[in-house]
Formats: sequence, C-alpha cells, structure tokens
Amino acid sequence: MNFDIAAPDSALAPALQHKIDQKTKPPGALGRLEALALQIGLIQQTLTPALRQPHLAVFAADHGAARAGVSAFPQDVTWQMVENFLAGGAAINVFSRQLGLDLSVVDAGVNHTFAPRPALIDAKIAAGTANYLERPAMSAEQRDAALERGRRLAHALADNGCNCIGFGEMGIGNTAAASLLTHCLIGAERDADLDTVTGRGTGLDDTGLARKRALLRQALARGGYPTDALEALAEYGGLEIAMMAGAMLGAAEKRMVLLIDGFIVTSALLVAHALAPAILPYCVFAHRSQEPGHRVQLAFLGAEPLMELDLRLGEGTGAALAYPLVQAAVNFLNEMASFESAGVSEKG
Amino acid sequence: MNFDIAAPDSALAPALQHKIDQKTKPPGALGRLEALALQIGLIQQTLTPALRQPHLAVFAADHGAARAGVSAFPQDVTWQMVENFLAGGAAINVFSRQLGLDLSVVDAGVNHTFAPRPALIDAKIAAGTANYLERPAMSAEQRDAALERGRRLAHALADNGCNCIGFGEMGIGNTAAASLLTHCLIGAERDADLDTVTGRGTGLDDTGLARKRALLRQALARGGYPTDALEALAEYGGLEIAMMAGAMLGAAEKRMVLLIDGFIVTSALLVAHALAPAILPYCVFAHRSQEPGHRVQLAFLGAEPLMELDLRLGEGTGAALAYPLVQAAVNFLNEMASFESAGVSEKG
Repeated sequence: MNFDIAAPDSALAPALQHKIDQKTKPPGALGRLEALALQIGLIQQTLTPALRQPHLAVFAADHGAARAGVSAFPQDVTWQMVENFLAGGAAINVFSRQLGLDLSVVDAGVNHTFAPRPALIDAKIAAGTANYLERPAMSAEQRDAALERGRRLAHALADNGCNCIGFGEMGIGNTAAASLLTHCLIGAERDADLDTVTGRGTGLDDTGLARKRALLRQALARGGYPTDALEALAEYGGLEIAMMAGAMLGAAEKRMVLLIDGFIVTSALLVAHALAPAILPYCVFAHRSQEPGHRVQLAFLGAEPLMELDLRLGEGTGAALAYPLVQAAVNFLNEMASFESAGVSEKG
Repeated sequence: MNFDIAAPDSALAPALQHKIDQKTKPPGALGRLEALALQIGLIQQTLTPALRQPHLAVFAADHGAARAGVSAFPQDVTWQMVENFLAGGAAINVFSRQLGLDLSVVDAGVNHTFAPRPALIDAKIAAGTANYLERPAMSAEQRDAALERGRRLAHALADNGCNCIGFGEMGIGNTAAASLLTHCLIGAERDADLDTVTGRGTGLDDTGLARKRALLRQALARGGYPTDALEALAEYGGLEIAMMAGAMLGAAEKRMVLLIDGFIVTSALLVAHALAPAILPYCVFAHRSQEPGHRVQLAFLGAEPLMELDLRLGEGTGAALAYPLVQAAVNFLNEMASFESAGVSEKG
C-alpha cells in the first residue's frame, strides 16, 4: 500500500514566525500555542489558517481476545457504548457538542448488527477479530480492507470540507491489542517491554492486570514478535485500530490536522508512522493518558502532548478537549493586533 | 477587613461522587475533570451545577518601580495594552470571544486617563503606585480602598447573575511586585528566596534579570520583609494586585468559581488566602506559567493546575484557555447517561 504523504514545506516558517512575533505580546509568551500556530500554518501552507468542519470520528470494533479475559468489562459493552454514542449520552457526545465538533461513529468491526442511523458509518470488516491467543487477529485481506476503508473515510471528510479530524475509539479489549502493537513496533530495547506497556485499561485490579499480562505473553509465544507494522497489525491488532491507521494516513494525504488522543489511537499512529513517517508533522498530540504505555509511545514519537488530565476513557475525549487550544492557536494568529496596528511600544 | 467566607459544606460529596461514578465510563476515567465536577458541585451545593455568565476581568495598573528598570517594556505599554483590550486586539480578547467569556477591563491605577468605554470599569485608586525603591508602593488607605472596590466589583458581577470569574492582569513591572509579595508571604525557608521567585517577566535577558534581582534586593533593604499580607501588599504590591485580591475575596463570599491564572494573579491569591484561607476550595488553578515563582506559589497553596502550556503572557489568558475544561466537567456531570439509563453493562 502506498501513501502519498510529504512533510509540509517549511519555506513559509520564517514568515509565520514573523507574524507570530509581531503580535501584541512578548515574543514566545503564548508558549505551546505559538508552536501550534506555526505547525498549522505550515500544514495549510498559509499565514491565515482556518479550521473547517472539525470532526471527531470514533472507530469501534470487537476483539476476540476480550472473551479470554483481557478486559474488566464484558464484550457486549462495545455495542452498548456504540448505541450510547448514537443516542448522544457518552462523554464524547457531551464534549463534541460543547466544542462544536461533528461526531461520527465508525463500525469497523463490532460484533453486533446496528440499525442505520445518521451518525453511524457502516464500514464493518467482520464481527470482530479472531482471538490472537489462538490465531492471528485478522487476515492480510481484512487488514488491507480496513486500512483502505479508513483512508477513504478520511478522503470523504476532506472532500466535504473538513480539514481537522480527531480520532477516537471504542472496543472492549483494545488496550491489550494496543499493548501488543506497542511492544512489537517500539521494542523492549526502547522501553516498550510488555509489562511496561500493559496497563489496567478500563480498570483492572492487580489480579486482573497480572492475568492480562500473562495472556499477552501467551499471545506472543504463539504469534511471535513481528516488528513489521503490517504483520503486527494483522497478528494482534483490532479492526478499529487498522481502520484508524488508514484514516490517519488518508487524512495526512489530504493535509488535514490530525488530533491524536490516547494510548489506543497512538498505537494506530505507530502503524501509520511506520508506513509513512512524514505523517508526524500533521499530528497534534492532545493529551498524555494515564495508561502507562502511552508515555512510551509519545517518547518514541518525540511527541509532547498539550495536556495531561489523567484521562483514560478513550472515545477521543482527550482529542476533543484539546480542540479549543488548537482553535485558540489559529485564532490568535488571525485575530490579534500587531504592535504596529495597535500602537503598542515594543520591548526596550 | 472581614470577609465572610466559609469552605463549601462537604455533605453533598458522596451523592456527587455517586452520580459521577454512575456515568457510562470506567470509574475515574475522566481524571481531573471528575475532581473538578465534584469541586464545582460542592461550591454550588447542587448535583446539577451550571456556569452562568462566565466573566474574565483584567485588572490593570502601573508600578512606580517600572521606571527604575524592573521590566523589559516601557511603562506606557500598560495604557497602550488597555487600549488594545478595549479595541479587541489582545490575546485575551481573542480567547474570550472564542470561549464565550464576557470581558471587562478594570482600571485599578493606570497612569493614563481613558475615555469611557463600555468594557472599561473605572476603579482608579491612583495613577500607579509609588516606587518601592524609595517608599511604600501605596498607603494603607489606598490598599484598603483597592481591596474594597475589588470586592464590590465581584459582588456586582454576582448580583448580575455571573457565577464564574476568571482573573487577569496587565501592569508593566507587576512580575517584580509579585516576586516581592511571594518572597515575603511564602518565605525563603519555604523555597521562596528572592532569586528563585524572580524571573524574566515579559522577557528580560540575563543582564536585565540580574538588574531586576539587584533592584528587588534594594527594595527589601529599604522596606524590610513584612510577612503580614496587608503590610506586604502596601509595601510592594500593585493596585491591580490589591484590587484582584479584594475581588477574589468578594467572589468567594458569593460562592463563585474562581479561575486563577498565572504568577501575578496567584500573588493576589496569596494575599486573599492569608486574609481568608477558606477561599482555596473556590479556586480552579488554570495553568502553570513559565515564570519560575509560580511553581513555588502553587506548591505553597497545594494546587495542581489543569494545564501547562509554557504561557507567560498574563492578561488572564491561561484562565480563559482553561474555561472549556471547567465547562466540560459541568457538562459531563449534567449530560452524560448513566449505566442504567443507557443500558450499558457495568464492570464484571
């Protein structure tokens, strides 16, 4: 699979930085927002960037291994939460409404048949993955189909005028899949040994966490330690993770701003990044999650997220909550007066 | 001066926590937002809190010591920036517009005569403070008048239906005043030695910083080391700092939510806290500023701010940028479905 992604041309950087420095504030005084304004200006290749039709896409799928006990919640919670998203009652609904984000729920592979609804995108590849304790989670064909559908979803959003997409997910068992992917793609020698990157997910107690780690060791004993992103994705991934990776790549192809949420979303980015490293300058890292593996992923990618709120909910909640900061970065660049226009004296 | 402030009754805490835990998310998964929802529920003494007419008040004043060279910018920038606020061109204008905050600019003591404007509140005590290198910054009468006007401003906002107030400031030289107050009120023995809490302000270079520290040592040699908050405020404070402290106390009397910005706003809170320690549970700490003394203040108050964005602009920009998080906390508490109402299975 080839993705047509080039890092943004940096020729505009000095002009953007000059514009930022002429605003009525001491140079650098808006901290992280200044770097963000520069990044978005470069992504959009303009001194007057704009965020249009910002969208939060929640990718949902089931994991065969969930029934083996890697999660604190039963598998049915995946489809029940999708129904909750569609009814408007989940945290991501509340935050998307508040912050003006369009929300869609992508059924990448939930083990349930949903009645059609406007906010539901049926992109189901299968009724969940196979149990990676017994066999590979998905076939190469399923994986490639998920990547391609994700890519097309992002292209469709871009074609409809959206230029900023936040990624979220729902899938009971998906922190376990994210842990395996993180372990394989980063490697124990770079601080991603299995125990370090395997956390409590939705809230396992000590016994549950020990069991999860033992099950994941078992999975690795069966399926090995693929360091190739596509192989690791098929072996241990989730359909929502594969489809998100494809959507991220498709979004970067369309030069959108990508809002990266927590541990599971970043595991999809590890895959996308392995396929097209130039995706990184399109990413805004929203927050550092409480899931311990997220810290390892962020360090590997050289990413410093905007917030640290001890979130561990998923759904894209961190990405949504960071959106006002992204908007603030764009707004100050466009709307603030300059020293000259406001008649304010510069530094002596 | 007596302030009628009692900490919120905590009897409602278990009911609030139960409501939070019944939301469709793993317990604790919304991290800091859950603590925030609990705090605001307690402040408002209800299971269904609401933020009404959120307001950002920028307090501006001049500092006699600014002409002695404690700042990188000339003193005229104070009134020029007030004009910029009134014209809508400053960072705090941009962020307040974006985030739905009413903005007012309080002239607590700017060395300039302003034409009346709707967003300008004329509460001028004097045309700036005296130079504390030569004599106390203000008289006891000026200080008390500033505190009382601030208190009345907050009461007036509350009486008009506002229940959430963010604090911002503008005043060339006011990081120097904040450093002196922080040093006196926290003390060198609790990590607030003068050099530690004296930073670059709007952007002094190494020479400028050394000069600022030397000048502040000179001020202490003249005025001493008052550990009483009211004495320290008169000796070294600013009229905007005094008026903010009064407004904070008045806001807590009215059981408002107080959004605390950076180093200078927190120096006003040190004064308010010394006069009425029960003010703290009404405070939401928005961000950790790059000004080194802010870290010391936050540690002294036992506060953990919501964000760390390397801001050092003042104006209340950090308080404004944190507002969506406060709103998100209130919104999830009011709008999210419960496990029961959404038909989602609980943890196994």
